[in-house]
Amino acid sequence: MKKDIKKSAKRRLSIAGGQIRGIEEMVDQEKYCVDIITQIEAVREALAGVGSLILRNHLETHVAHDIRHGHEKRATEEILKVYRLAQK
Amino acid sequence: MKKDIKKSAKRRLSIAGGQIRGIEEMVDQEKYCVDIITQIEAVREALAGVGSLILRNHLETHVAHDIRHGHEKRATEEILKVYRLAQK
Amino acid sequence: MKKDIKKSAKRRLSIAGGQIRGIEEMVDQEKYCVDIITQIEAVREALAGVGSLILRNHLETHVAHDIRHGHEKRATEEILKVYRLAQK
Amino acid sequence: MKKDIKKSAKRRLSIAGGQIRGIEEMVDQEKYCVDIITQIEAVREALAGVGSLILRNHLETHVAHDIRHGHEKRATEEILKVYRLAQK
Repeated sequence: MKKDIKKSAKRRLSIAGGQIRGIEEMVDQEKYCVDIITQIEAVREALAGVGSLILRNHLETHVAHDIRHGHEKRATEEILKVYRLAQK
Repeated sequence: MKKDIKKSAKRRLSIAGGQIRGIEEMVDQEKYCVDIITQIEAVREALAGVGSLILRNHLETHVAHDIRHGHEKRATEEILKVYRLAQK
Repeated sequence: MKKDIKKSAKRRLSIAGGQIRGIEEMVDQEKYCVDIITQIEAVREALAGVGSLILRNHLETHVAHDIRHGHEKRATEEILKVYRLAQK
Repeated sequence: MKKDIKKSAKRRLSIAGGQIRGIEEMVDQEKYCVDIITQIEAVREALAGVGSLILRNHLETHVAHDIRHGHEKRATEEILKVYRLAQK
């Protein structure tokens, strides 16, 4: 994994983990539902950003390697898999 | 907040927090990108479920109350707000 | 259905229909894939906007009526249904 | 564009166009909002399928070609672009 991507992904995941603990607290203190949902969607978007980052790493390393070594089929199917997950 | 919803939301958020720590570890150990992305999407979906749960609480408590007390406008705008966040 | 919402929804759907015909043409002329996908996502977002508009109508008419007449349960389940569809 | 993908994409787009005309009619006849929204989400999902199909074509043709000819950077950025659109 590229060093800068790894570092950034870990930092963002750590922040997302903190946000989830914050949401747990909001639920515990029975904060306003709409505010809780807004925070949940913020974490979901932050995680989408991490997914995009990891995909960048995948494309820049494995995919290029796969295609140069004749594993196009595998590379294609894997990208389509993560694309479909993102569409949901 | 309804007791059963609160309990379920806290439990699910705690699990999601654990999953995020697991993903941090996967990144740390440089696991296969596609597996990491798949896990990220699983947490995003789990969080969507919590959002849906909190919305249920909101609808069953605040919204009904708001509408009965003439605050239809506010109730409507808030539901549309969370709906649009979900569409993203 | 509220008159202004109906008018706006019909106009937007008509535009979306035109966009889809445009995409069919792009496919026919074998335009660049990334441009085709970008157009598809634009229509998907436009349709999300129509969904949001119809939900506004639903909330402002049926839901308020349902709740005032003791059909809270039905109103809640229906909103949760469309919310979950939006999350996908 | 691959022949089978082109054919399938055109057919699916034509069906989606028909569905949108159906939704216009539902709005015109003021059908139940929840049913209209459900139909809108069905078309959105159908269009997501077409996007996935076009991406498959893109990966199997342009991307492999780009990477073999040293245009990795461009290939990567384009895939990330459509991935981010799908995440929204």
